[in-house]
Amino acid sequence: MTEDEILTSIFAKLPHPPDDVAVPPGDDCAALKISDDTLMLLTVDQLVGDKHYLMRKTRPEEAGRKLLARNLSDIAAMGGTPTYCLLAVATPVRGAEQWVQRFVQGVLTLARLYDVHLIGGDLATAPHDQVAGLTLVGTVSPRRVCLRSGARPGDGLFATGCFGQSFETGHHLSFSPRCREARFLAENATVTAMIDVSDGLLLDAFRICRASTVGLRLNLDSVPRRTVTTTQGNALYDGEDHELLVALDSKSAETVTGDWPFKDVCLTHIGDFYASGTPEIRDTHNTVLAHDTPHGYDHFALHANH
Amino acid sequence: MTEDEILTSIFAKLPHPPDDVAVPPGDDCAALKISDDTLMLLTVDQLVGDKHYLMRKTRPEEAGRKLLARNLSDIAAMGGTPTYCLLAVATPVRGAEQWVQRFVQGVLTLARLYDVHLIGGDLATAPHDQVAGLTLVGTVSPRRVCLRSGARPGDGLFATGCFGQSFETGHHLSFSPRCREARFLAENATVTAMIDVSDGLLLDAFRICRASTVGLRLNLDSVPRRTVTTTQGNALYDGEDHELLVALDSKSAETVTGDWPFKDVCLTHIGDFYASGTPEIRDTHNTVLAHDTPHGYDHFALHANH
Repeated sequence: MTEDEILTSIFAKLPHPPDDVAVPPGDDCAALKISDDTLMLLTVDQLVGDKHYLMRKTRPEEAGRKLLARNLSDIAAMGGTPTYCLLAVATPVRGAEQWVQRFVQGVLTLARLYDVHLIGGDLATAPHDQVAGLTLVGTVSPRRVCLRSGARPGDGLFATGCFGQSFETGHHLSFSPRCREARFLAENATVTAMIDVSDGLLLDAFRICRASTVGLRLNLDSVPRRTVTTTQGNALYDGEDHELLVALDSKSAETVTGDWPFKDVCLTHIGDFYASGTPEIRDTHNTVLAHDTPHGYDHFALHANH
Repeated sequence: MTEDEILTSIFAKLPHPPDDVAVPPGDDCAALKISDDTLMLLTVDQLVGDKHYLMRKTRPEEAGRKLLARNLSDIAAMGGTPTYCLLAVATPVRGAEQWVQRFVQGVLTLARLYDVHLIGGDLATAPHDQVAGLTLVGTVSPRRVCLRSGARPGDGLFATGCFGQSFETGHHLSFSPRCREARFLAENATVTAMIDVSDGLLLDAFRICRASTVGLRLNLDSVPRRTVTTTQGNALYDGEDHELLVALDSKSAETVTGDWPFKDVCLTHIGDFYASGTPEIRDTHNTVLAHDTPHGYDHFALHANH
């Protein structure tokens, strides 16, 4: 089973949530009703040594930065503003003190840039591994909150930034979470769905299709690639881009692309949603790129380039 | 450096928190102002395989139960009511799926008893270790919130339950977090300070002394021990009792011990606070049991029995 499938099977067992849960588990963040005009967003993400960074090569500050950045990207994907975080770190005893201090410094340096405050933490020793978890709190207006589930036939799919080879280029350690871009979109356009691309563009686009029960025609040639040597396969399947995929209704798409104020981050129209009884992604030649099977998500084509 | 010292040095570097942080890091939970009559409590705690439980012997359900129970104890210590949780789990790939499902089941079974809802999660693979972190959300009235810092000379120190040998007896896997007891105290007595005993009675009592700048005269003979073979040293220094230490003003102490409605959980008067310019704990013979040194917390006596 994939992480998605395990989580889905866990969430399926949960009792019906109370009324103040505005967004139940399964989106980029959960959301709680705090007042008539405020939702509180909550998300948790982990960073594991030698999985998400190389313990021997990565500076602790870079690892700490990355952990917060991944969570910021989840708050961005809901159109929210991050506010508070709690940090849990488990490390082997050897060298722990200095490593933890530097790791936390990496969290705090980025936190200051995004006006996030650390309000709690836990330290533990682990036999072998470095594992850190960060819970990030944020806020969003219920009128502005962006889910995965609202994309409609006729909406366009837009992407911020570039895709592929995040690990090879170091992007996974240095990326800027798209909080201001997401808020601009949520405030100035009709965002019908939004998601953070953490597990590859194709899979995360498919998550919108699945949550919204729509098909997506993806224009492969229009997907911006990170470098001149990045292949189409890299751009579709590599993970950790931490860009946004945004479904916009066609009217507001025109306005918002014209008014887009961020010179250093491109917003690219990469596809269009169509009516489909089952979620799927096709290219402009009508070749199926991704669909669900009885055994879970499957994707085809371009795989050889990956 | 101890965990306390590392955390203190981290918290000392934090910028001044925004006004809606009612309780900054350093207590059992952080608290955010949500409205005039509600604080939101937030706490995070971790559980590490072969540190907090034995990977070969402990059932995954028991480990999951323990993780939530530890966090519930932190919400209890603030006088709060738990509401929502987010769960992050990192495990080695081998056997991960079944282990995670059973671990989560342990969390959910206890969650149902305490009316806590799981609203988010993250799964990751780790090279070797099992590390899980749980963030627990709760609520409390600002008039009822119990901190570590309010104990005054003349207040009595009370303890729920028994102490020592939590690991040897299996108590650390099966304990009942004292949420209802804590709420009863917060609602029916003048609780001037409260803390969850996770790192040994003496150290956690000393944390109240330090946060409140008071001395504590501890009546060693009155500390309830878990079994007939539990030594005084076990009761003072062993960890993971997850009982409450409560400072009560003398008037309400009389009333609340008389009205104590929980037949299966004793509430015992174990000491009294006195004025002291520096935090310290002495026994009834005036022997110093714990005090601060330039190198951190130090404790004496009974150590040989530990």
